[in-house]
Amino acid sequence: MLVPNKNYADLKDSYLFFNISGKVKEYSEKHPDDHILRLGIGDVSLPLCDTVIESLHKGVDDQSVKERFHGYMPEVGADFLREKIKAYYGKRNVVLDADEVFVSSGASDELGDILDLFDRSNSALVIEPADPAYVDANIIAGRKIVHLESGRADNFLPMPDEKLSADILYICSPNNPTGAVYTKEGLKAWVDYANRHGSVILFDAAYEAFIEEDRPHSIFEIEGARTCAIEICSLSKTAGFTGTRLGYTVIPKDLVREGMSLNKMWVRNRTTKTNGVSYIIQRGGEAVFTDEGQKQIKENIKVYKDNAKVLMKALDEIGIWYCGGKNAPYIWLECPDKMGSWEFFDLLLNKLQIVGTPGEGFGKCGEGFFRFSTFGDPADTIEAARRLKTLL
Amino acid sequence: MLVPNKNYADLKDSYLFFNISGKVKEYSEKHPDDHILRLGIGDVSLPLCDTVIESLHKGVDDQSVKERFHGYMPEVGADFLREKIKAYYGKRNVVLDADEVFVSSGASDELGDILDLFDRSNSALVIEPADPAYVDANIIAGRKIVHLESGRADNFLPMPDEKLSADILYICSPNNPTGAVYTKEGLKAWVDYANRHGSVILFDAAYEAFIEEDRPHSIFEIEGARTCAIEICSLSKTAGFTGTRLGYTVIPKDLVREGMSLNKMWVRNRTTKTNGVSYIIQRGGEAVFTDEGQKQIKENIKVYKDNAKVLMKALDEIGIWYCGGKNAPYIWLECPDKMGSWEFFDLLLNKLQIVGTPGEGFGKCGEGFFRFSTFGDPADTIEAARRLKTLL
Repeated sequence: MLVPNKNYADLKDSYLFFNISGKVKEYSEKHPDDHILRLGIGDVSLPLCDTVIESLHKGVDDQSVKERFHGYMPEVGADFLREKIKAYYGKRNVVLDADEVFVSSGASDELGDILDLFDRSNSALVIEPADPAYVDANIIAGRKIVHLESGRADNFLPMPDEKLSADILYICSPNNPTGAVYTKEGLKAWVDYANRHGSVILFDAAYEAFIEEDRPHSIFEIEGARTCAIEICSLSKTAGFTGTRLGYTVIPKDLVREGMSLNKMWVRNRTTKTNGVSYIIQRGGEAVFTDEGQKQIKENIKVYKDNAKVLMKALDEIGIWYCGGKNAPYIWLECPDKMGSWEFFDLLLNKLQIVGTPGEGFGKCGEGFFRFSTFGDPADTIEAARRLKTLL
Repeated sequence: MLVPNKNYADLKDSYLFFNISGKVKEYSEKHPDDHILRLGIGDVSLPLCDTVIESLHKGVDDQSVKERFHGYMPEVGADFLREKIKAYYGKRNVVLDADEVFVSSGASDELGDILDLFDRSNSALVIEPADPAYVDANIIAGRKIVHLESGRADNFLPMPDEKLSADILYICSPNNPTGAVYTKEGLKAWVDYANRHGSVILFDAAYEAFIEEDRPHSIFEIEGARTCAIEICSLSKTAGFTGTRLGYTVIPKDLVREGMSLNKMWVRNRTTKTNGVSYIIQRGGEAVFTDEGQKQIKENIKVYKDNAKVLMKALDEIGIWYCGGKNAPYIWLECPDKMGSWEFFDLLLNKLQIVGTPGEGFGKCGEGFFRFSTFGDPADTIEAARRLKTLL
C-alpha cells in the first residue's frame, strides 16, 4: 500500500496572491472605469532584448537542419554557456572552473531540486521575511525550519547568532522582498559562521544584476565561501527570462561534507534526474553574456531602476521609512500610522487604486510592512508616485 | 554540521556509455579510415518538423514585443497546451480534465521529480532490463528496490506476481531497452494488481507514438487505471524533442492515497518547486498536437520505422531471436552463439564496425542480449544490415 508523502499536509495554503487578486477583482467590478496601478507583481514587464531574441531564433533554426540539430544536451549544461558564465564571474575576479557551473531551468526550480543533496535530518535556517518557497520546499522534505526574524533594527540584514544552530542557511541578497543587500563584511560573518558550524549556505543571487553600490554580487567574492556555499542564480530578473526560463548554479569543488563532494553529487543527480536544459534556451542565455547582451539588458534594468527612483522620491517626500530600491527591484516600506499590511493594502487600492504586496505574505515579521515592485509600467509607476504623495 | 545525503554513496557508477565510447575511440584511432555505423544511441537524428519550427519562431517573436511578451507561466503548464494534450487523449477515447495534465520539461526530469509525492518508506518495483535511472532515483531517496527480472520466456513482458510486494511500480511500454509492448490484457493485470495492493504505477509512455499494432498507447485506456496510475510522457522521441525538452504527465483526480489527492499534491509541488516550462518551448509543443504537426512527426517516425524494418529483416535472415522493432524504436536481440553482451559488442565493432548497446547495461538479466537503436542514419542502418548478414 503506497504511503503518500504526508509532509504535504503540513504545508500552509498560501492565499496571499489569491487574496490580492480577489480584492482587485472586486474593486474593478465596482469601479469599472478606474485604471489600477499594479506595483504588486514580481514579474518583469519588458520583452527580451534584441540580441537574445536573435540568438533564440538562431537556436530554433539549428533545430530545423540535420547538420546543426542538437539532441540530448549535457545534463549539467552546454559547454558554450558554462564557459560564458565562468567568464562572467571572472570579470569580478571570482575564479571558477567551468565544471563548477551548472545550467538550470531557473532559480526556483533549482532551489527545489538542490535539497536532494542533503539528508532530511538537517535543519534549514530561513531569514524572514522570505520567499515562502524556502520554507515549503523543506516542509515537503520533512526538515526542521529555524526561523530568523529580521526587522528595522537590523535593516533587515541580520547577523548570525551563535546560539542558533542550523545546517542549511538560506541567504537572499539582494533580498526578496526587502531589497536589502549585505555588505562584504555582513556576508563574511555568515561565511565564517557556516565554516565554523559545517553548515552550507544556499545563496540566492537572483537579483545581483540590480546592485549598483559596492556590494558583493556573488557569495564567492567572500573569502572562505568555496568551502561552505552554493550559489543559485537566474536570468529571470537579470534579462527578463521569467517566462523563458534559464538559470545557473555554482557548486565549488571545495564544498565537501563527510568526504562527499557536493559538486560530484550534483553531477550524479542531474545525470540521473534530468536530460539537461533546452538547447534553444541555452543559446538565448549565451547572448546575455556577450558584450552586446550585457549592454542591452542594462538598458532594461535602467527602466526598472528609474521606476525605483520615482517611488523612492515619493516615499522620501511623504516621510515613509523604506529599504531596498537602490540595489534591488523591490522597495520594502513601513506602513504609515502603524497600519497593518492588509489595512494599508486596502487603503492604497480603494483610495489611490495602487496594488502592492502586503508584507505578512512573506512571514510573520513582515506584518506592518509592504512591498512595491519596480517591474511595472513606467507611466503607471509615475502616476502611482504622484498619488502616493497625496497621502501626506 | 550539514549531513550530506549519504544514499549517493550507494549508487553504482554507470560505465556503460563511457566504456562504449572508450572502445569506439580506441578502434577509430587504430583504424582511422573505417566508417563506424552507430546503432547505439538512444537519441534522435532528424531535425524538428517544419510546423514545430514555425511555432517556436513565433514563440520567440512573442517574447520580443511588450504586448505579446510572456512572463511567468502557470507552473502546471499553459492552458493552450494542456487543452491540446487533453484533446490528443480524447482521440483514443481517454477522457481527461485539462487540469489532470501537467506540462513538464521531459520524461526523465519528471520521473526524477515525481518521487517527491511518495514517502521514502515505499518500495519500488523495477521490471528489468530497465533504464538505470529508475533504480538510481530511488536509491537517492533511500527506497528499497524490488527487482523483477524478465526474459525470453515471458517475451520480456512479465505479469505481476502476487508474492511480490511493492508500492511504486515502474512500467515502460513500449519498453526501453527491449521494445516489448504490453497488450491490453497484460496492462489490465498490472492495473488490477495495483488496485488490489494500493500500489501506484508510474507508466513511462515515452515511446507510445511508435505503436502500430493494436496495443494501448496510454495506461488510461485500461479500466481501473484512474485510481492507480500516473502516466509520464515525452515529446523527445515522438517529435524529436530530446534537446528541445518538453513532456507531460497525467495524474487523475481519482488517484488518492490515505485521503490525499496526488493531483493536488503535484499542483502544490510544482507551484513550490518550479516556475513552469518555457513559453517558447510550450508553443513549439503545441504545434505537435495540430493535424499538420501529427502528419509531419509521423513522417519522421516512418524514417525510424524503415530503419527498424531493415534491421529486423537482416536478423530474420540470419536467424537471430529479437523482440521490439515493430511498435518501438528499439530492437532487442539475443547474442548469437551464447555470446556475452560485451563479447558481441567487440565482435560487431571489430569485424563489422557496428556499434550497439550491450544488454547488461540495463540490468543483470540483460546479459547475453543486445540493443539496436533505430534512430540512426538510414544509409548507415542499411549498410549495418548488409554487414550483419555476413555473420551467417
